[in-house]
Amino acid sequence: MTIRNPITWPNGARCACCITFDMDADSLIHVEHPRDGHRRVSAISMLRYGPTVAVPRIVETYKRLQLRQTFFVPAWCIETYPAAVEAILESGSELAHHSWIHENPIEQTAEEEAHWLDRGIAVIERVSGRKPRGWRAPLYNFSDRSLDFLIARGFTYDASLMGDDIPYLIESRATGKRLVEIPSHWGLDDWPQYVHAIDLDYVMPVRAPSQGFAVYVQEFESAYRHGGLWVPVVHPFASGRLSRWDVFAQFLEKVLARGDVWFAPMEEIAAHVTALTNSGAYSPRIELIPQYDRPVGRVFGGG
Amino acid sequence: MTIRNPITWPNGARCACCITFDMDADSLIHVEHPRDGHRRVSAISMLRYGPTVAVPRIVETYKRLQLRQTFFVPAWCIETYPAAVEAILESGSELAHHSWIHENPIEQTAEEEAHWLDRGIAVIERVSGRKPRGWRAPLYNFSDRSLDFLIARGFTYDASLMGDDIPYLIESRATGKRLVEIPSHWGLDDWPQYVHAIDLDYVMPVRAPSQGFAVYVQEFESAYRHGGLWVPVVHPFASGRLSRWDVFAQFLEKVLARGDVWFAPMEEIAAHVTALTNSGAYSPRIELIPQYDRPVGRVFGGG
Amino acid sequence: MTIRNPITWPNGARCACCITFDMDADSLIHVEHPRDGHRRVSAISMLRYGPTVAVPRIVETYKRLQLRQTFFVPAWCIETYPAAVEAILESGSELAHHSWIHENPIEQTAEEEAHWLDRGIAVIERVSGRKPRGWRAPLYNFSDRSLDFLIARGFTYDASLMGDDIPYLIESRATGKRLVEIPSHWGLDDWPQYVHAIDLDYVMPVRAPSQGFAVYVQEFESAYRHGGLWVPVVHPFASGRLSRWDVFAQFLEKVLARGDVWFAPMEEIAAHVTALTNSGAYSPRIELIPQYDRPVGRVFGGG
Amino acid sequence: MTIRNPITWPNGARCACCITFDMDADSLIHVEHPRDGHRRVSAISMLRYGPTVAVPRIVETYKRLQLRQTFFVPAWCIETYPAAVEAILESGSELAHHSWIHENPIEQTAEEEAHWLDRGIAVIERVSGRKPRGWRAPLYNFSDRSLDFLIARGFTYDASLMGDDIPYLIESRATGKRLVEIPSHWGLDDWPQYVHAIDLDYVMPVRAPSQGFAVYVQEFESAYRHGGLWVPVVHPFASGRLSRWDVFAQFLEKVLARGDVWFAPMEEIAAHVTALTNSGAYSPRIELIPQYDRPVGRVFGGG
Repeated sequence: MTIRNPITWPNGARCACCITFDMDADSLIHVEHPRDGHRRVSAISMLRYGPTVAVPRIVETYKRLQLRQTFFVPAWCIETYPAAVEAILESGSELAHHSWIHENPIEQTAEEEAHWLDRGIAVIERVSGRKPRGWRAPLYNFSDRSLDFLIARGFTYDASLMGDDIPYLIESRATGKRLVEIPSHWGLDDWPQYVHAIDLDYVMPVRAPSQGFAVYVQEFESAYRHGGLWVPVVHPFASGRLSRWDVFAQFLEKVLARGDVWFAPMEEIAAHVTALTNSGAYSPRIELIPQYDRPVGRVFGGG
Repeated sequence: MTIRNPITWPNGARCACCITFDMDADSLIHVEHPRDGHRRVSAISMLRYGPTVAVPRIVETYKRLQLRQTFFVPAWCIETYPAAVEAILESGSELAHHSWIHENPIEQTAEEEAHWLDRGIAVIERVSGRKPRGWRAPLYNFSDRSLDFLIARGFTYDASLMGDDIPYLIESRATGKRLVEIPSHWGLDDWPQYVHAIDLDYVMPVRAPSQGFAVYVQEFESAYRHGGLWVPVVHPFASGRLSRWDVFAQFLEKVLARGDVWFAPMEEIAAHVTALTNSGAYSPRIELIPQYDRPVGRVFGGG
Repeated sequence: MTIRNPITWPNGARCACCITFDMDADSLIHVEHPRDGHRRVSAISMLRYGPTVAVPRIVETYKRLQLRQTFFVPAWCIETYPAAVEAILESGSELAHHSWIHENPIEQTAEEEAHWLDRGIAVIERVSGRKPRGWRAPLYNFSDRSLDFLIARGFTYDASLMGDDIPYLIESRATGKRLVEIPSHWGLDDWPQYVHAIDLDYVMPVRAPSQGFAVYVQEFESAYRHGGLWVPVVHPFASGRLSRWDVFAQFLEKVLARGDVWFAPMEEIAAHVTALTNSGAYSPRIELIPQYDRPVGRVFGGG
Repeated sequence: MTIRNPITWPNGARCACCITFDMDADSLIHVEHPRDGHRRVSAISMLRYGPTVAVPRIVETYKRLQLRQTFFVPAWCIETYPAAVEAILESGSELAHHSWIHENPIEQTAEEEAHWLDRGIAVIERVSGRKPRGWRAPLYNFSDRSLDFLIARGFTYDASLMGDDIPYLIESRATGKRLVEIPSHWGLDDWPQYVHAIDLDYVMPVRAPSQGFAVYVQEFESAYRHGGLWVPVVHPFASGRLSRWDVFAQFLEKVLARGDVWFAPMEEIAAHVTALTNSGAYSPRIELIPQYDRPVGRVFGGG
C-alpha cells in the first residue's frame, strides 16, 4: 500500500504535483489525415480551442493561484500559435518538448527521429531563449532510441513513461548514462474521460466534468497519503473547456489551501531529484532502457 | 476560469441557451448502407421514433414552457416526415438546414456540395416560406468550402464548429466576408451518452437518463456562471425517448424558473450578435476559415 | 412529456411490463465463428451459464413472485438445452421464437429466412405443444420480408422494433395485413451495460450491477408515470449472473408491492391490444412496413 | 436468486474468495507486436509496473493481512522478473501456470500447446520446487485440447472458465476424467474498468479507482449472501497502481473484519472441493468439455 523507496519533497511537502498540459492543438488531425486534415474544419476548431481559448484561461488561473506548471507543445504548434506560447512563457510556466507535429518516433528512422527532435529544440530555444529541459513523446511513443537522443542533447528529464509512482532514473544501454523519468499513466490522462473525435478514430463515452475529474481527485488523495507524484496528462482542448476547467480550478484551490503540497514545473521536480541523488541523500530506482535490444516472443503471432 | 471576451445577453440574462435538435431520422442508415439500409427495419424504427414520437413530445413541452428553439433537419427528412416539420413550424421554432440526407460535404466535390445545399434551401423555403438562416454540417463535417457557400446564399449563422464558448465570427479566406458562428462541442452531444447502433457502427455504453443528462446540467451551470452559451446538440430519437425527455423537461422547468436565462432560436442569437457587432457595442473574436489552404504535415503519415 | 395515444391497461394498471429474456446461449459464438466457435471453450462457458445456471434462478424468482414472462429462444438452443426450456414452460412463462441459431435474416434469401423460421416454429410446437405467438429478430435484424412471413404463419405479435413507447400495429406493404408490435429499445438492453466478449467483438466497460441496472429503474419510472411499456431486453448469461440478478429481483419485489403494475407475457399484452382494437375501444398507431420498397440515398456513399 | 447446488465452505465461512492476479507484465506487447513490441518503451513501462512496483506492494498488503492468494504468471515473466516471483513465493502465495508468454492456445497446434505447457511447468517446478496445480488460459483462451493436457499432467484445477458461481467439475470427452473448475467472469476482471492501451488495441473509458472497484464490492456482497465464490481476475499493472490498490486494500480490511469469509489460494479451494466430493459429502455439477466435438452452425456465416 505504500511506496517502497520514498523520496523527500521540498519543505516537508506531502506530495509533488505537476499538471502537464500537452498543447497539441490541431497537429493531431494533420498527422492522422495528411491529405485532407486541413479540410476538416470542425475537427480543427475543436482542437484549436486549446491554444485559442483554453490556454489563456488556464494561464489566468495559474496566475491567480500563483502556480507555474509545464506545457508540452509540439514545435509546429509553437510556430502556429505564438500568442498561446507567449502567454505560457510570460506566466513563468515551463515550455517543454513534445515532437514536431505529434508524429510517432517509433515509426521513424533514427535519422528522422533525431532531425525532428533537433528542429523542435531549435524552435523552443528561439521562442524561449532556452533549450528545453524535458520531453514527452507524442502519444507516449517513446522509442528505443529516444533516451540516447535526449541525453546527448542535454535534456534533464523525460515524462513519457508509466513505470512508477515517483521519479526514477532510466539508464542508457549504450552509454550507461541516466536521465530522470517523471512518470504518469493513462489513469491520469484526460482523453479516456472526455475525448470523442470521430476524425481521430477515438470515441469515448464523454463523462460529465465532475465525473471525469473523479480520477484526478482519487489519484491525488493517494499521492498525498503516500508521498507520491500527481502528474495529470491533460489537454487544453479537453480539460480546458469552460465547465471542465471550473471543476479543475476549484479542486486546485482546495488542494492549495492544505499548504503542504508541492506544485512545480517538471524541470524543478527533476532538479530536486537530481540534487538529492547527487548529494547521496536519495537513491532512486534505476531502470535499463530500452528494456530489450531485440524482439521478444517472435515465435508467436504473425505481425 | 472566465470568458475573456464576454458578450452581453438581452435583458440582463446570465447566459444564452438554444437546444438544437438534429432531426436526422433514418437518413443515417440510408447513407451508411446505401444498398440495403432500407431493409434494416429495426434500425429504421429506432431512428424514425424521432419524427414520429419524439418531435411531437418535444414540441408539446416547448409549447407548455413557451419555448421556441432550433431544429436542424435534412431536407430528405423534411419531405419524408411532413407532420413532424409542420409541428415544429407551427410551434414557432426555427427550421434550419442540415444537408440533404446527412451526406458528408468533405467527401463531395464543390459542385456536389453546392447542389445539395441549394436543394435543401429550396425545400426549406417551400415548406416554411423562408430561406434558412442557419446551417449545421451533418456529423460536424463542415468543409473548407462550406463558409463561402453559406455566405453566398445569405445564411446568417453556422452551428457546426467547436472553437469557443460564445459566438464568434468566421471569416472567409476568399472574400473576407464574415458569418456568425454559434459553437457547441461533443461534450454537449447526446450520441456519446445514449446511442448504441450496431448498424451505424457506433456503440456506446448507454447511460441511464439522469447519468447521461449530467453533462448538460454541469455544462449549463458553467455557462450560467460565466455568461456563456448552452447549446445541446441533441437528437429526437435519442434524447426524445420517454424517460430521457422526462429528465430533460424537468431540468428545463427548473432553469426557466430562475428567470435570468435567455432561451432563443439560433437565428435570434445570431441576430443579437450581429446587432451588437454592427453597433460597435461588441467586438467578437474573428477566425479565418478554413484555417489552412493546403495540407499540413504531409511528411508524416501515409493516409 | 406524455404519451400521445395512451392505451388502457387491464385492471387500472399504471403500465405494462414484460421482462423478455433472450436465451441465446452459445448460439452466438457458433454464428460468429462457424469454423472454430466450438473450440472457444471459455466463451462457450460464459454463454452457457445462461441456460445452465441463470435460467433456473430466474424461473425460481418468477415462481416466488408469481410472475409469468416471455423467453425468446433460438430453436437450436431449445434442442441443446432442453432442461432450461422445460423449466421455462413448467413455470407458465411464454416460449417465443428467436431464429434458428441467431443467424441474421437480413443476410438471407427469402427462401432461407422462411426455411429457418419454419424449422423454429416446428421445434417450439414440438416442445410446447403450441405454435409460437411471438417473434423477436436476432440482434433486432428484422428484414423487409419478416412481417409478411410472420403474418402468414399466424404470429400475433413481433418484438423486434423500437418505434414507440407503447404497442402499435405494423402493416404489410404487400397485403395490408397488420401485426401487433411490442417495442423496446437499446436503452433497455443489457448488452451495453454488462457484456464484454472479445470473441464476439463486443467490449463494453462492464458496469457494476446496480450502476448498470439504473437504466431499468429510470425507464420503469417513466413508463409508470406516463402509462407506458417496460420491456427489458435481457440475457440470462448477462443479467442472470448472481449479483446482477440480486439487483433485478430486489427491484421486482419493490415494484410488485405497488400493486398497480401489470406484468404479463408478451402474448397477453398483444392479446390485450388486439382485443381493445377489435372492440373499437382503442385505435393504435399504424406503421407501414417495410418503410421503403427500394434503396434510399443511393447517390451518396459507396457501400 | 440462490445458488442451486450450494457447497459448504470450511469453518462455516459464508463464501470463498481468491484474488487471482495475472502477472502478465509486458508479455502482452511482445505477443501483440512480435516485430517491434520491444521498441514500444512506454507500453513496456506501463506493463512492467506490475512486477516492479505493484507486486511488492500487493505482497506487502497480503503479509500485513495474513493472506495467501494465487498469482498466475506466464513462464517468460517468471524468468524475466525473478524478484517479483520470489516475493510471491516467499509470502506463501501460490504460483500458478499462465502460458509461456501469453500466447493463444486456440491458435496453436496440439503439439505447440503441449510444448509450451510443458515448458511452463518446468519453469514453475524449477523456481518453486513444485509442479503447478492450477492453470488459467491467457485471455481465457482455453482450447478444446486444454482439459486433456491439464489432466494428463496432474493439474488439480483450472481457472479459465465462466460457467458457474461456484466450483464445478469439467469432464473430458476423451477419457471421462474430471478436473475442478474454479470459475470467474468478465464482471470481475479489471481490464474493462481500468485498462487503456492503444498499443494493445484495447481502450476503455478508465474509471476512477472507487468507481471501477464498485464491481468487486457488489459481486462480493452477492457471493457473501448466497454462499458463492469471489474470484477477482486482476492484473498488477492495473489494479496494483497506487490509488487503485488503496481502494482494494481498504476493502479487504473491512471484509476480513467480518471473520466469516474464507480467503485461500485456488489450490486449497480446489482441494476442498475434491475432498468433499471424494467423501461423498458434496456432488458438484459436472460439465462435459469440450462441449462440442465439431463445428456448429456452419451453414451460417462465412468465417
